[in-house]
Amino acid sequence: MVSSLPYFPPSTEFRIRPEILALQSSLVQWRRELHRWPELGFKEKRTAEFVANKLTAWGIPHQTGIAQTGIVATIAGGGKGKGKVLAIRADMDALPIQEENIVSYRSQIDGMMHACGHDGHTAIALGTAHHLWQHRHSFAGTVKIIFQPAEEGPGGAKPMIEAGILENPKVDAAIGLHLWNNLPLGTVGVRAGALMAAVEFFHLHILGRGGHGAMPHQTVDSILVAAQIVNAMQTIVARNVNPLDAAVVTIGELHAGSAINIIADKARISGTVRYFNPALADLIPKRVEQIIAGVCQSHGASYEFDYQKLYPPVINDHAIAELVRSVAESVVETPAGIVPECQTMGGEDMSFFLQAVPGCYFFLGSANPEKDLAYPHHHPRFNFDETALSTGVEIFTRCVEKFCQ
Amino acid sequence: MVSSLPYFPPSTEFRIRPEILALQSSLVQWRRELHRWPELGFKEKRTAEFVANKLTAWGIPHQTGIAQTGIVATIAGGGKGKGKVLAIRADMDALPIQEENIVSYRSQIDGMMHACGHDGHTAIALGTAHHLWQHRHSFAGTVKIIFQPAEEGPGGAKPMIEAGILENPKVDAAIGLHLWNNLPLGTVGVRAGALMAAVEFFHLHILGRGGHGAMPHQTVDSILVAAQIVNAMQTIVARNVNPLDAAVVTIGELHAGSAINIIADKARISGTVRYFNPALADLIPKRVEQIIAGVCQSHGASYEFDYQKLYPPVINDHAIAELVRSVAESVVETPAGIVPECQTMGGEDMSFFLQAVPGCYFFLGSANPEKDLAYPHHHPRFNFDETALSTGVEIFTRCVEKFCQ
Amino acid sequence: MVSSLPYFPPSTEFRIRPEILALQSSLVQWRRELHRWPELGFKEKRTAEFVANKLTAWGIPHQTGIAQTGIVATIAGGGKGKGKVLAIRADMDALPIQEENIVSYRSQIDGMMHACGHDGHTAIALGTAHHLWQHRHSFAGTVKIIFQPAEEGPGGAKPMIEAGILENPKVDAAIGLHLWNNLPLGTVGVRAGALMAAVEFFHLHILGRGGHGAMPHQTVDSILVAAQIVNAMQTIVARNVNPLDAAVVTIGELHAGSAINIIADKARISGTVRYFNPALADLIPKRVEQIIAGVCQSHGASYEFDYQKLYPPVINDHAIAELVRSVAESVVETPAGIVPECQTMGGEDMSFFLQAVPGCYFFLGSANPEKDLAYPHHHPRFNFDETALSTGVEIFTRCVEKFCQ
Amino acid sequence: MVSSLPYFPPSTEFRIRPEILALQSSLVQWRRELHRWPELGFKEKRTAEFVANKLTAWGIPHQTGIAQTGIVATIAGGGKGKGKVLAIRADMDALPIQEENIVSYRSQIDGMMHACGHDGHTAIALGTAHHLWQHRHSFAGTVKIIFQPAEEGPGGAKPMIEAGILENPKVDAAIGLHLWNNLPLGTVGVRAGALMAAVEFFHLHILGRGGHGAMPHQTVDSILVAAQIVNAMQTIVARNVNPLDAAVVTIGELHAGSAINIIADKARISGTVRYFNPALADLIPKRVEQIIAGVCQSHGASYEFDYQKLYPPVINDHAIAELVRSVAESVVETPAGIVPECQTMGGEDMSFFLQAVPGCYFFLGSANPEKDLAYPHHHPRFNFDETALSTGVEIFTRCVEKFCQ
Repeated sequence: MVSSLPYFPPSTEFRIRPEILALQSSLVQWRRELHRWPELGFKEKRTAEFVANKLTAWGIPHQTGIAQTGIVATIAGGGKGKGKVLAIRADMDALPIQEENIVSYRSQIDGMMHACGHDGHTAIALGTAHHLWQHRHSFAGTVKIIFQPAEEGPGGAKPMIEAGILENPKVDAAIGLHLWNNLPLGTVGVRAGALMAAVEFFHLHILGRGGHGAMPHQTVDSILVAAQIVNAMQTIVARNVNPLDAAVVTIGELHAGSAINIIADKARISGTVRYFNPALADLIPKRVEQIIAGVCQSHGASYEFDYQKLYPPVINDHAIAELVRSVAESVVETPAGIVPECQTMGGEDMSFFLQAVPGCYFFLGSANPEKDLAYPHHHPRFNFDETALSTGVEIFTRCVEKFCQ
Repeated sequence: MVSSLPYFPPSTEFRIRPEILALQSSLVQWRRELHRWPELGFKEKRTAEFVANKLTAWGIPHQTGIAQTGIVATIAGGGKGKGKVLAIRADMDALPIQEENIVSYRSQIDGMMHACGHDGHTAIALGTAHHLWQHRHSFAGTVKIIFQPAEEGPGGAKPMIEAGILENPKVDAAIGLHLWNNLPLGTVGVRAGALMAAVEFFHLHILGRGGHGAMPHQTVDSILVAAQIVNAMQTIVARNVNPLDAAVVTIGELHAGSAINIIADKARISGTVRYFNPALADLIPKRVEQIIAGVCQSHGASYEFDYQKLYPPVINDHAIAELVRSVAESVVETPAGIVPECQTMGGEDMSFFLQAVPGCYFFLGSANPEKDLAYPHHHPRFNFDETALSTGVEIFTRCVEKFCQ
Repeated sequence: MVSSLPYFPPSTEFRIRPEILALQSSLVQWRRELHRWPELGFKEKRTAEFVANKLTAWGIPHQTGIAQTGIVATIAGGGKGKGKVLAIRADMDALPIQEENIVSYRSQIDGMMHACGHDGHTAIALGTAHHLWQHRHSFAGTVKIIFQPAEEGPGGAKPMIEAGILENPKVDAAIGLHLWNNLPLGTVGVRAGALMAAVEFFHLHILGRGGHGAMPHQTVDSILVAAQIVNAMQTIVARNVNPLDAAVVTIGELHAGSAINIIADKARISGTVRYFNPALADLIPKRVEQIIAGVCQSHGASYEFDYQKLYPPVINDHAIAELVRSVAESVVETPAGIVPECQTMGGEDMSFFLQAVPGCYFFLGSANPEKDLAYPHHHPRFNFDETALSTGVEIFTRCVEKFCQ
Repeated sequence: MVSSLPYFPPSTEFRIRPEILALQSSLVQWRRELHRWPELGFKEKRTAEFVANKLTAWGIPHQTGIAQTGIVATIAGGGKGKGKVLAIRADMDALPIQEENIVSYRSQIDGMMHACGHDGHTAIALGTAHHLWQHRHSFAGTVKIIFQPAEEGPGGAKPMIEAGILENPKVDAAIGLHLWNNLPLGTVGVRAGALMAAVEFFHLHILGRGGHGAMPHQTVDSILVAAQIVNAMQTIVARNVNPLDAAVVTIGELHAGSAINIIADKARISGTVRYFNPALADLIPKRVEQIIAGVCQSHGASYEFDYQKLYPPVINDHAIAELVRSVAESVVETPAGIVPECQTMGGEDMSFFLQAVPGCYFFLGSANPEKDLAYPHHHPRFNFDETALSTGVEIFTRCVEKFCQ
């Protein structure tokens, strides 16, 4: 999945201030420690302890155990309670994937791996907390640094918000980043509007009537009904969605039948839906069920249907996106390093923060093919160029300085 | 469509009695006269006059003008009102086809032709009337000879029955024959049960919502809905009809759209349904509309639907079929000349007579490839071996003698 | 699956000769002993021993171990080597079904059951052997009684024929029967021509290209290809097979995909094909693969395809069927007890015998709803009215007497 | 099709310079004269004469008869041959639509109408020519004003380019505008990159084998094949095109069959394809034909296929688009009047100019619902707010001043 964009040779400096450059070796050490001990969503016990221990050691006020394993560190700037409040969000969870990298900091847990870079996100957030705490008089408002569980599902953002972390003080905007192997080191993907897609799932049981394979007239053939539903579903993206809107309806699983000469009484289908435009949030599920209902009626079948809206689309606020863009451009030193064409149909529960407050999620280029660090996310050999860690801290820091004046 | 059955060399005798053999040249003459002046259904004016003139000339009591152009001749046998009543039915109408045969008796009407053999049926019925009238003391009951209009559609059998021709005296059974180029001269196709299929038609308008070809999301694409209906209709025969039952659902016409870059608001579909088993008379139309309704609902289209049951299946009574079979076997002299595997998905409104009274419709083999008389019915070069004419009269006569004792 | 045909109250006599009526209690005893110890195909060890022990005890010449567990008993009539040779075939295997009947002779083997009546077939064949041996001077030719393994699959008929059992002396005709709960006790289903369908199986792997559910353009969606194949296959029966020919194409299994948000790289389909007309033996497999190839090509998928012809159709010889029909009619005493409309899309490897020699397979009505003996074949509560056993022996015996004159 | 964007009340000034404001009444007069006499593509005789007469009267050098009816006026600025060369393009042709507006300047030609605003485009270009000629010392380079025939098809841009109009002097950039009723008066739709879609057409004949509606097995049912092709084509947009790329595959026409009970031997399909991303220029036609070929093969049909690439996508150069955007923003006085989300799947042969040289095509908001001037383009009641005419001249003029320094 690595893009064919031009490769920008990594500069270890970029215009990163010396205090942050000095953090780089710590950032790498923290990230590797986290990498060794991956934990699944809502089970980030060791990870949360690692974060909390650092915050405690540094004296940064923080609250733990939010939405099970989440942590929020709050750093008041020099403005004596005045100034805006910016939230910086990092996710902490890993994936049930067996690591195939041969590295000193390889995962110590069989079948589990930081294969999406959340170890890096946590390290960047820690580094940002450390630096901002040290230089808390350099900005006016308040920064909340959010360490979130379970981004890979079922989602830690929503319960953390419901736990009240965007209040007291009230957060004015939220930013977050994803280390991104689809972009080369030295680039930043940032754009106003839709960045990542809504992620929705559906489960369908088609209930026909089974029978002998030689006597179809006594049955309602659930495999046939399933096939016609799969076909008809293609028309949602092809005909019902505005061609200018991106959308996906994928059926990932179809299972029916237990014997070659028995007509299957039941078929099980499950799939995923992706889109950016919030106007599709109603349209697509409605069309999915309308097709199911109509085709089942055509053939005398019934059905059980469940549709889950996992994450809404990640939609960046124009003003905050412009702030991030200008900050990022000042760091990567070149307009060509800013990639606005960075939309992806992948999803993220950062979207819940962006529904609650204006904000911007962005991609921090982390691929470095020369070092063989270009495998796609969720690949057993995923890894990223750690040079990006201090860049992330620098961008976050400048955003705070600019936003919380 | 000529069958590959063994060819039986025509015998001009077969065991045909001399009096009927003597009629052969008249039969040919009558048939050719009728062939010259083909007339469409309910417009058989000249044909009916020809028939009525003959009956009048011979002194046979008859009634004309039934169901517009139909005629019934009634011949009471020697039983003084006792004995059973047998109806013999012939059809008189021609087809809108331009004849391509080069024969002396070629159609004199441009674009119209006796391309199905009804001219022969009428001649056989006339010959039978003539012979039975001459020998009316040789049988006991009564014979009604029915000259019916419009078999090719929209159907003259039903209105003649509604006009009461099966009453006064009440008809006990009905027989009829079709000269049949799918069988060689010298054979007779006869079987108990289903012989010919029900013929039904449907017309469908799918009502979508038109629009610009580049903006499908503003439309309901009627061509897409039509396509999914065509597909789903295949499942009726493939899945809903008992595999042991013959059935056809054919969509003959599909027309939609008037411009390459406009999404069609309407699609027009028409088709035909065929089957033997009366149990399908409800099932198939129900499934056709269920599919239309379900698919339309799937895509937000509506529809207008019309389903016409033209002719029911031709289903022969077991006892009367056995009577015809034994008579035919005695005429063709050989069991091998009787072909029970003669079902066809074609239709006939003889079926209305067979719904009203027990009876038997049968096929009189008329193909003679050696004389190039083997083109299929409805072909511009259709013609049959006229030797079959007196065979038809002999079979009808023996059936009367046997049934009306 | 019990038919709605009129119920004929069982007569324990039917015109069964006293010697055979006297066998009835032995027939029941043998059948029940076999029922207690069901064995799967080619594993009929105990069953074969039971049969062989009886034959040995009675002194009937026989050969064992043919096609593993098959047995052939040969009884020469009084014609001193003259006269025709008739084979009588019975099958011996049971099914992997857990019996739910509560009867004294219930299956003693967990998960195994004589749920199709082969125990009865074996008992009838034994009874026939016993009677014919006792009265071997009452017929002229020779009788071979075949005890066949593995009818339920993979088939014992073919290997027994290949082992030469139709030679020395050369068999002139073969008959066999199936106890049939689709017909009431007191009826016999017999017809010339096709009685049971060919049974064929196919297995298909569709090979697409997997990928992320949100990135369909990088994949070949095997579920979509499978769906379009399922749809297109409906057209074989609906359009390609002569409507006058019975045929079934059933897809019994469709399995694809392992995760809701991953596009499946592979789909697995399996199905069964049934038909009577041997002309379809080439047409259907050709159409099945043509559809698979075309649809796969449409979408850039490839495939692996395997088509197995298990059993050909059971097609009865006209003359032998007429012999069985007339014999059966003489036994059941009434023409109404003969049911020619008894075709079924089920299959049988009796077909291999009927391909090798002329013959007739027929159904011996065995349902008795008044005694709750009417469950369909292969049902855990299948059982039949044992009254039919001596009827079977009587019919077989009369066939021998008539054929082997 | 009028968008739901906020309505900006029209200002007759917008910062339009007095000299151009003074032209407004002439612009209206010219436009109305052109509106009265609409002419189809390559038949713009009277229109071209009108343009040429004006240019001649004003003394502006020009060449006529290019690509039949096209005209190019060339105005050298005060730079003495130095400076850049900008082309301004207007289209002149009308549509075969019967006007339903009741206005004094209503179309005088039955069944023909300026229903897309090209009359306005021509008037704006004339006004721009007039002003620039009067003030030709205010800019340095050279302006070519192109009056193009046949934009609605088959396309006048390509033959004019082939006639050499972009040479001598060599054109450095090209701009053009479309009066746009999808945007309110007072707004300008302008964006870098893809603005309008490629327009492609395809024509397909499916060649099956006709036959009697009751005998499908003797045929290849072209309606069935057509239906499966329509279905399979949905998968191109749904599965093969990157969800982030806009694309449309529309089948606008499907015609097959001439009788309800005859299986159609031929089906005719035609459709249109739209997309922005040039990478799809190969992919989509390839997929369209791959689907046709595969489905035809599935069913034993053959086909004739023709695919025409009418217009490529309209893709604006980043630098020229930024120039137009900044100019437009200075004219409409408010950033909110600039609408970058103005992509449309409609097409334009301005794309050929933009393939030849960098450039920018933009939309000039012309809807004014308060005056009932908001019907969509190509509607019989299409009309626009003529206030936009002088705005168009002002924007073109400022672009010249800025580009041709």
